Amino acid sequence: MDKQEIRSLLEAVAGNTLSVDDAILKLKLQPFEDLGFAKPDHHRGLRQGVAEIIFGAGKTTEQILGITRAMLGNGQSTILITRLSPDSAKEISEELPFQYFETGRIGIIGDLPKPDGAGKILVATAGTSDLPVAEEAAITAQVLGNEVVRIYDVGVAGLHRLLSHMEDIMSARVIIAIAGMEGALASVIGGLADCPVIAVPTSVGYGASFGGLSALLTMLNSCASGVSVVNIDNGFGAGYQASMINHIKE
Amino acid sequence: MDKQEIRSLLEAVAGNTLSVDDAILKLKLQPFEDLGFAKPDHHRGLRQGVAEIIFGAGKTTEQILGITRAMLGNGQSTILITRLSPDSAKEISEELPFQYFETGRIGIIGDLPKPDGAGKILVATAGTSDLPVAEEAAITAQVLGNEVVRIYDVGVAGLHRLLSHMEDIMSARVIIAIAGMEGALASVIGGLADCPVIAVPTSVGYGASFGGLSALLTMLNSCASGVSVVNIDNGFGAGYQASMINHIKE
Amino acid sequence: MDKQEIRSLLEAVAGNTLSVDDAILKLKLQPFEDLGFAKPDHHRGLRQGVAEIIFGAGKTTEQILGITRAMLGNGQSTILITRLSPDSAKEISEELPFQYFETGRIGIIGDLPKPDGAGKILVATAGTSDLPVAEEAAITAQVLGNEVVRIYDVGVAGLHRLLSHMEDIMSARVIIAIAGMEGALASVIGGLADCPVIAVPTSVGYGASFGGLSALLTMLNSCASGVSVVNIDNGFGAGYQASMINHIKE
Amino acid sequence: MDKQEIRSLLEAVAGNTLSVDDAILKLKLQPFEDLGFAKPDHHRGLRQGVAEIIFGAGKTTEQILGITRAMLGNGQSTILITRLSPDSAKEISEELPFQYFETGRIGIIGDLPKPDGAGKILVATAGTSDLPVAEEAAITAQVLGNEVVRIYDVGVAGLHRLLSHMEDIMSARVIIAIAGMEGALASVIGGLADCPVIAVPTSVGYGASFGGLSALLTMLNSCASGVSVVNIDNGFGAGYQASMINHIKE
Amino acid sequence: MDKQEIRSLLEAVAGNTLSVDDAILKLKLQPFEDLGFAKPDHHRGLRQGVAEIIFGAGKTTEQILGITRAMLGNGQSTILITRLSPDSAKEISEELPFQYFETGRIGIIGDLPKPDGAGKILVATAGTSDLPVAEEAAITAQVLGNEVVRIYDVGVAGLHRLLSHMEDIMSARVIIAIAGMEGALASVIGGLADCPVIAVPTSVGYGASFGGLSALLTMLNSCASGVSVVNIDNGFGAGYQASMINHIKE
Amino acid sequence: MDKQEIRSLLEAVAGNTLSVDDAILKLKLQPFEDLGFAKPDHHRGLRQGVAEIIFGAGKTTEQILGITRAMLGNGQSTILITRLSPDSAKEISEELPFQYFETGRIGIIGDLPKPDGAGKILVATAGTSDLPVAEEAAITAQVLGNEVVRIYDVGVAGLHRLLSHMEDIMSARVIIAIAGMEGALASVIGGLADCPVIAVPTSVGYGASFGGLSALLTMLNSCASGVSVVNIDNGFGAGYQASMINHIKE
Amino acid sequence: MDKQEIRSLLEAVAGNTLSVDDAILKLKLQPFEDLGFAKPDHHRGLRQGVAEIIFGAGKTTEQILGITRAMLGNGQSTILITRLSPDSAKEISEELPFQYFETGRIGIIGDLPKPDGAGKILVATAGTSDLPVAEEAAITAQVLGNEVVRIYDVGVAGLHRLLSHMEDIMSARVIIAIAGMEGALASVIGGLADCPVIAVPTSVGYGASFGGLSALLTMLNSCASGVSVVNIDNGFGAGYQASMINHIKE
Amino acid sequence: MDKQEIRSLLEAVAGNTLSVDDAILKLKLQPFEDLGFAKPDHHRGLRQGVAEIIFGAGKTTEQILGITRAMLGNGQSTILITRLSPDSAKEISEELPFQYFETGRIGIIGDLPKPDGAGKILVATAGTSDLPVAEEAAITAQVLGNEVVRIYDVGVAGLHRLLSHMEDIMSARVIIAIAGMEGALASVIGGLADCPVIAVPTSVGYGASFGGLSALLTMLNSCASGVSVVNIDNGFGAGYQASMINHIKE
Repeated sequence: MDKQEIRSLLEAVAGNTLSVDDAILKLKLQPFEDLGFAKPDHHRGLRQGVAEIIFGAGKTTEQILGITRAMLGNGQSTILITRLSPDSAKEISEELPFQYFETGRIGIIGDLPKPDGAGKILVATAGTSDLPVAEEAAITAQVLGNEVVRIYDVGVAGLHRLLSHMEDIMSARVIIAIAGMEGALASVIGGLADCPVIAVPTSVGYGASFGGLSALLTMLNSCASGVSVVNIDNGFGAGYQASMINHIKE
Repeated sequence: MDKQEIRSLLEAVAGNTLSVDDAILKLKLQPFEDLGFAKPDHHRGLRQGVAEIIFGAGKTTEQILGITRAMLGNGQSTILITRLSPDSAKEISEELPFQYFETGRIGIIGDLPKPDGAGKILVATAGTSDLPVAEEAAITAQVLGNEVVRIYDVGVAGLHRLLSHMEDIMSARVIIAIAGMEGALASVIGGLADCPVIAVPTSVGYGASFGGLSALLTMLNSCASGVSVVNIDNGFGAGYQASMINHIKE
Repeated sequence: MDKQEIRSLLEAVAGNTLSVDDAILKLKLQPFEDLGFAKPDHHRGLRQGVAEIIFGAGKTTEQILGITRAMLGNGQSTILITRLSPDSAKEISEELPFQYFETGRIGIIGDLPKPDGAGKILVATAGTSDLPVAEEAAITAQVLGNEVVRIYDVGVAGLHRLLSHMEDIMSARVIIAIAGMEGALASVIGGLADCPVIAVPTSVGYGASFGGLSALLTMLNSCASGVSVVNIDNGFGAGYQASMINHIKE
Repeated sequence: MDKQEIRSLLEAVAGNTLSVDDAILKLKLQPFEDLGFAKPDHHRGLRQGVAEIIFGAGKTTEQILGITRAMLGNGQSTILITRLSPDSAKEISEELPFQYFETGRIGIIGDLPKPDGAGKILVATAGTSDLPVAEEAAITAQVLGNEVVRIYDVGVAGLHRLLSHMEDIMSARVIIAIAGMEGALASVIGGLADCPVIAVPTSVGYGASFGGLSALLTMLNSCASGVSVVNIDNGFGAGYQASMINHIKE
Repeated sequence: MDKQEIRSLLEAVAGNTLSVDDAILKLKLQPFEDLGFAKPDHHRGLRQGVAEIIFGAGKTTEQILGITRAMLGNGQSTILITRLSPDSAKEISEELPFQYFETGRIGIIGDLPKPDGAGKILVATAGTSDLPVAEEAAITAQVLGNEVVRIYDVGVAGLHRLLSHMEDIMSARVIIAIAGMEGALASVIGGLADCPVIAVPTSVGYGASFGGLSALLTMLNSCASGVSVVNIDNGFGAGYQASMINHIKE
Repeated sequence: MDKQEIRSLLEAVAGNTLSVDDAILKLKLQPFEDLGFAKPDHHRGLRQGVAEIIFGAGKTTEQILGITRAMLGNGQSTILITRLSPDSAKEISEELPFQYFETGRIGIIGDLPKPDGAGKILVATAGTSDLPVAEEAAITAQVLGNEVVRIYDVGVAGLHRLLSHMEDIMSARVIIAIAGMEGALASVIGGLADCPVIAVPTSVGYGASFGGLSALLTMLNSCASGVSVVNIDNGFGAGYQASMINHIKE
Repeated sequence: MDKQEIRSLLEAVAGNTLSVDDAILKLKLQPFEDLGFAKPDHHRGLRQGVAEIIFGAGKTTEQILGITRAMLGNGQSTILITRLSPDSAKEISEELPFQYFETGRIGIIGDLPKPDGAGKILVATAGTSDLPVAEEAAITAQVLGNEVVRIYDVGVAGLHRLLSHMEDIMSARVIIAIAGMEGALASVIGGLADCPVIAVPTSVGYGASFGGLSALLTMLNSCASGVSVVNIDNGFGAGYQASMINHIKE
Repeated sequence: MDKQEIRSLLEAVAGNTLSVDDAILKLKLQPFEDLGFAKPDHHRGLRQGVAEIIFGAGKTTEQILGITRAMLGNGQSTILITRLSPDSAKEISEELPFQYFETGRIGIIGDLPKPDGAGKILVATAGTSDLPVAEEAAITAQVLGNEVVRIYDVGVAGLHRLLSHMEDIMSARVIIAIAGMEGALASVIGGLADCPVIAVPTSVGYGASFGGLSALLTMLNSCASGVSVVNIDNGFGAGYQASMINHIKE
């Protein structure tokens, strides 16, 4: 019940075409739709008309198809599905027009929108094993209307590789820095860049990487200002927040 | 050595007023100033003319005064000193015009600038014990040119307290959500808000809070989109990144 | 050996129909049955005539069937089997009248009893992935004679979903709050409700959820009063204790 | 804004003594007070007329006195203050009629109410070092209107000590089992008792007790049914939930 | 109530000098004394006539004196007090004949008994910082009637120091191996010796010793057979179990 | 080179049938066999004539057969193989007379020796899932010449089950207490028994049992005297040390 | 761009055969090649002409073959491939001359170079299960031009096995000490040797070895001087650093 | 007993001037002195004539003075004392010629030797708070005969600071990289340098630095080859191993 609906209800009361008791009942039954929350549905339902998002992990293909059909029925034209296995993707594409990005295990229904953010989002990874997380972040940002620049395999142990992308780093509006193992990439980029850096630790590594814990702690302790961190392997979260930042004036 | 200086050097070589050997020496001695790094000095030296920042923890009053005098000598007019004890603050204020904010253990030389960001930064805390971290974040953001709205003691166990600030939440450009113990505030705000949320876990709590670890994990696992996290008790880092986000179009 | 049996024994001694030595032997052999313990068999054997419980994990179908037959032979009519695989369930149902609830991996022999508790038990989950744990809790509570209300997928990142069930929350006698990832649901419900809340962390999540540790710590640190916690994924334990609370006057 | 106030507002609209716009504003500004929350103030404000609670840790005596005076001014007659140092207690008692329980570091203004719960709450500890936590739990329960039975120093390494209190265990409605070190008391009591057991790990111990972590894990893994756990050293939380359970029929 | 007392009771019933109801009451009231437990009081009360033990940590001098006086009143002649500060020791020695061993923070009332075990107990430490734990173990073992051989500062980084005590190692009946830092001493001794080795990790160290955790894990993972482990810094526990083993034939 | 061989060598030198240089060479090449170590080969080679032990985990059947044949060739008649899969066991039994105990995953070549220890070793488990560890301990102890009493499924949540074995507990010379989950069995037995208790945590459990960590910490923190601990699931280590203790007079 | 190239560029500017703008562009585009970095490609590309290294884990056979062909095309004659499965090795060997070492899961293209280091590198392991890590280290060192001595299965629980290799230990220039479980080997060797020791914890073990954490902590806490540590199972890293040390004079 | 002594003994046996039994006794009593260990005393006693080392932590001034006097009495001229408080240093300097370095809490008796290593040791720190650890490492290396170059406060968040020391990095024979917080310095230097890097994590930091754990994990996971790690804050260990490496040819 939005402001206009409340007005109508109150006008009906004022005009005595609605009884006070009926008005109370309506107000009582629907109190939470009234609150004007921006997000009718969590984790999804972003800015109306742009994209809905389905977290595919732990859902059967049939469940995903069901949700997708419902969204399409509600007039949604762009839908992003994350953590989607190739097998599920194949089944979905047999029924619906569907574009699947295997590296990032992410798929979209509908076209990628024109970028309309403040600037470019840079997605950087330390190694090639970090690519699945990076592509989840990059595709997410693209679907949400951002231009994305990718610089992959620029880990700090070979600093010249990173420094050769100095121009990309200096011109980005938001940077997503993705690394497993020791996770030092975020600090180095944070020291070079002049924009917010979202760090994503990955579970890449062995031994004392403890499933991404090492990279996570490194990033949280970054002595570079302007760095914040999301969950291990959470490419989607980084892409989503980067898009929010890049659209901050809208 | 910026682009203009390189041009002058090369023109001097071209005009034969500078020998090739002397030019090589100059290029060799100063290679890193040449890179066009935005930040000549890490953790400090933000946008020129705004503020320098000194991390006070582990520094003697004399060291802080020394750095401060040097900065003032270089023409810097606004300086922020974080993690500053009341005793050090008193000594500094005896020598220099100085404003100290005891709750946040933070002080400034110079005046707070006019806010020039895209919008307001909201600083929210779960409890009153989180105030030192919150004020570190808030004063940092103010010194960096942001309008700050504070809503304190709005922990999720008394949801009505938070919901009564719905308008502040909906109108913020960036939100800093600060909580110790179970740290659930970030998720709830992340679900309500439509802007980036920077979560700051605090070391407030006892027992299984394990010095902030519990709140940190909670925030990293937030199922609300648009939330990223900084180190435990790192109010400065949150304020700094929030300011970056709020000035993204500049 | 209950009080009546001791009386008979003593009367036999008093009447000289039982020798002192034989009486000593009987007392010596059975000392622990004498203690009046309420529970002759741990984890099972609740209030006589209601239900026996078998923890199915790590038991073969044949072992489960053996225990079940023995219980039925002892006159038990209702038996609950938890952590039971669909395959085992199928085998059991071929031999015995058996009802299997696949989501909660739980099955019962005999009919669900009429609810006879003080009021309703509310089972709430943050997400749909928490359903197996929730159903284990809910079916357990039902088998033990409780009316159960389920509200699923009401995680705090979409607060309106939870708030729209305010009436269920306010009218429950006990609430079981189930969540993985950041586990904030327990605190928010604990703040809204006026009855005991049993929190169940789940192993749902990835990365820094560390197999449920994050949700567990969150729940233990809840700043809402009236919240206690059981082991990760322990739906049975929550349902069992909730039933105990709901039957406290009996 | 309760149901009656909404009725008045709507009648004013119906009677045209309040404009539709003014009614919208009022509804919009106060949406959350409307929800009928039971607890106007979290962690405090329990059943009206019984007791208010102040968490004393981290508050100055002056702050505590300020809150106390405000509560008294609002007509509150019984106030519980937890985690209160002897020094603060002394200062408070100089100004107000005040009873301080030094072992539990807890104090009350007003008289202990008559017990009105369903039965007795048993508070058991493994050792004498657990007494501060036990007394925090016991006094909390007493202030909230419960009869409390204390059995202290009944750790499982000397089982006869615990078993000699079998009658107390069998007749309790709720049991609070408190232990540091290995924390086994909760499991043993959970196996003996026929009522809900709230386990409280304490930070008592050294070495591999890791500040209460060992006892916490033990209690979470209890193989006795009917046991749930609160935070390390959280006597208040246990006493509070125990009281809720003991008053469930009210 | 021992077997003889039960016999008397039953004979009284048989002879009709005791009513059945009174017999039931006596059996009901005293069930646990009947069990024939060897230890009337846990952590103390070892083999009658040898020694009582008081764990001094967390007890005031007055409390310790009270317990001591009661024990002496009960005819106990030898009493061991562990974890006792020098100040408390001084106060006790002013009132009672008392011998205090400052390094091990342990004191005794009464004389050390003649050793009556199967053989010698060897107490070995890796460094000199482990001495307090070692002396707690050694004095405990001596008070319980064992001959103790001490070899201190024989850490594995200087293997010749340990090997020069090969004869002591080969002739011991039980060995207590005490080490902080990397804790490797237990494995090396376990490989050399032909008797049970009780390993005691100590909290000696810094950095990644994590308060004794490193030594604890090392010892638990010992690939030498015949090694078991007690809690960090638990010299008393090692001395106590070593004495049990050394007296196994008694 | 044992004492007799050194004597022979020296006599050969004395008799001039061996040159000094050759004697030096022999002494130099074999210096470590000279040391009189009791154990020529770690983890195996116990008291000569009793049993050799092979740790089967991570070894191929062919490797195990090779070692076995070599041992038999050296005149060893009893060989114990631990952590042996049923498949490997089958292959071995096709070639050699071999007895395999599937529950404990342990096999022996040769006959079980006559028990020759001081008394009985009691092996107790909390649940039925702990049986594999228990049988590894029990068979190990039997092969090393001990009489073993097994009491299984006597977890502390059903105390009467444990107490009904009081006589076994009181008459044992060594007790091996095995438990997963909360691991409280060791403390309770430690409090009841008057002999050394070796506690074995098992990886049985889920959630916060963290692969046996919970039980391990519980056991290390046991407040019962006389308890020491071996690695998680290390039934062999417990059986081996128990045998050492039970043969201490030999 | 090396010093000579900068000179050429500047001379071209001085000679007016290169415009200032073009010179700026060249300087700007290539700043990082100018830095004289020794390693053009991280983790690989060691001393030119010796060997290139490919980390095989997580790469498909096709990817590995692609990189290999490119390297061979660039004139590289020796290539080391680590963490390579037998299946991939087989496929590679079908196309290229290739030598595969299955235990260490490592393969080389080209011949092993003549050792040219300062002395011998000793590779020692505690058990036979550590061999894969040891062979990764040993082959790495050999490919990088070192003479390697292997002493395997010399764990500290059977000290004579290690001591019988005293001569190898005393004559080595660098020692790589590899152990899982309790990891004590590094300390003992560190105490015996007079050269740098690189310790490699392995994930060998079970229970409280926690995937190598126990051995890692042991090694970090070594009280022997001259010991440093690499990641769990990182045989390559140890072999690589050992080679660096052994070639330090070159 | 060295080779010559064994020869004498055997010759005495051959000449029948020593009985076989006496020879056996001598060989048996002194087996371990025979081993020719290089280090008569662990942690100290390095290359004769250079320096003895005393670990000062946990020792009283009097104990340190005692050891020092004994060493001087044995003809030692250079002695290094680590972890020495200023107060102890003052007391020592009142009795002996003594040079104290307060930042590194380290002192020496005797003069610094002439550097005689292969090249320079570079000691680099991320921040100024790491100086105490760095100076402990640097002074240690100097006392052991090394030329040391210090570059402090070159953390990776301000990369230009580190890169401006490229020449020092490229020309070092060993590098000690010291950092707290995120510890990324070791990886970046490891990628730039062509020599062994010893990484030292420090306990500098707050929150999720967990007393140095974060930096430790980062360094262990370094993806730069040639990096190994010592314990948190172990400057001495790094300086010692660096000296060993730098003297490898000696």
